[in-house]
Amino acid sequence: MKNDKIIFLTNDDSYLSKGFRAAVNLAREFGRVIAIAPDRVQSGMSQAITINTPLFLRQVEVSDDVEIYAFSGTPVDCAKIAFDHFFKDKRVDLVLSGINHGSNAAVNVMYSGTMGAAIEGSFYGVPSIGLSLDDHDADADFEGAVKYGREIIASIMEAADRLPRPLCLNVNVPRCGVEDIQGIRLARQTRGFWREDFYARQDPHGRDYFWLTGAFQNAEPDAEDTDEWALAHRYVSVVPVQVDMTDYRMLKSLDGVIK
Amino acid sequence: MKNDKIIFLTNDDSYLSKGFRAAVNLAREFGRVIAIAPDRVQSGMSQAITINTPLFLRQVEVSDDVEIYAFSGTPVDCAKIAFDHFFKDKRVDLVLSGINHGSNAAVNVMYSGTMGAAIEGSFYGVPSIGLSLDDHDADADFEGAVKYGREIIASIMEAADRLPRPLCLNVNVPRCGVEDIQGIRLARQTRGFWREDFYARQDPHGRDYFWLTGAFQNAEPDAEDTDEWALAHRYVSVVPVQVDMTDYRMLKSLDGVIK
Repeated sequence: MKNDKIIFLTNDDSYLSKGFRAAVNLAREFGRVIAIAPDRVQSGMSQAITINTPLFLRQVEVSDDVEIYAFSGTPVDCAKIAFDHFFKDKRVDLVLSGINHGSNAAVNVMYSGTMGAAIEGSFYGVPSIGLSLDDHDADADFEGAVKYGREIIASIMEAADRLPRPLCLNVNVPRCGVEDIQGIRLARQTRGFWREDFYARQDPHGRDYFWLTGAFQNAEPDAEDTDEWALAHRYVSVVPVQVDMTDYRMLKSLDGVIK
Repeated sequence: MKNDKIIFLTNDDSYLSKGFRAAVNLAREFGRVIAIAPDRVQSGMSQAITINTPLFLRQVEVSDDVEIYAFSGTPVDCAKIAFDHFFKDKRVDLVLSGINHGSNAAVNVMYSGTMGAAIEGSFYGVPSIGLSLDDHDADADFEGAVKYGREIIASIMEAADRLPRPLCLNVNVPRCGVEDIQGIRLARQTRGFWREDFYARQDPHGRDYFWLTGAFQNAEPDAEDTDEWALAHRYVSVVPVQVDMTDYRMLKSLDGVIK
């Protein structure tokens, strides 16, 4: 029964974004939706948590199958209050974070608040999907993201009982017409980093300011098993994400160096 | 020559913290120190970046071998403006982030602004060390962190030319007298997650608020090769950190599930 299922929804672009609304409508196809999303834009907030200030939660919408709350914290705070305060021991069937305005492929997985919340959700043993569209436009077309998001959610919910935990997927959808999308590819995180070009100007009071802008430097543009390659070739990329950041090869290199 | 070396210093507790001052004095033993640190507390800011607002930089201290700047951004913003604007192509010999008030062992590596900045620094090909003391007290005793931090920095700078890149270390020092520290252990990141207990009260205006508090749940307290085990047994833990978050085992499990 669809209505037996509970979908927890969050994002980083706030509950007011077009991508969030697309996600509400997608998620309600799979069950009752309980959304706790930031009350303002929290892009680039990574796995950040709010330690030093109190947080406020308010209900902004309620209907038969959807409840939406706006929260004053980060995306990860939204996931934490959902599971540690709101749901407690209630069974949740899926965490959906998004639909993000902008790609979270490659190392963006680390900077993204959308992926921060998806990763945090997976820590509670619930299958988690971060869903992002490679288009930052506030009025982006989410048709392809909804179509392929639906397929991936259905596949994961069907297979959930036989997949290990934690289970977190970083799903990215190319920016093109839905009919031009070539399909779905399982992929690994592309190697590469951002190099920034700080935009430096003076404010109206004569103070120098800096504004972050930059470009991703793909270290392996020809690697067909990567998420960036998939997006560049109009495939939806699916990268499973885990959080053991230990550099096991470096551990061997350090043997004898650190005593 | 010591003065040929340049050490980039940052943290997440701000340039005003006791741990930062301890790090300035430690770093200047190894070269000329250029510090760009947050102008206010940025604990728990993870790999967060500031996309939507301008950032301000001001010099707060300058002497023969130390320059300190306060920046209005996150710890990662500090690393980015250092390398992409301030240093440009200048050679930097070490990134030191800390000394943090509080442990960044286990999954804390993901939430920590101190580690966020250390990780970001490693993206520029420079050996990076995040140095943390397992004591949140604003007036914590940094003697052990300085002593063992010095040993580890010396070892890494001596071996830097023969170690691969990116090179990032998550170093955590136990909270005990320096004479009680048992030594240094190479370790891996402990498995386990935080479970939060939201402190819920009403503010003076009758609004409900929530305040994050919680406890780390160690999934493998007896694993002697982990960083939490090392700290619990009064060793300094050294975990090398990398950022490929792909879950390669899950990729195999998803074969046939995601089509």
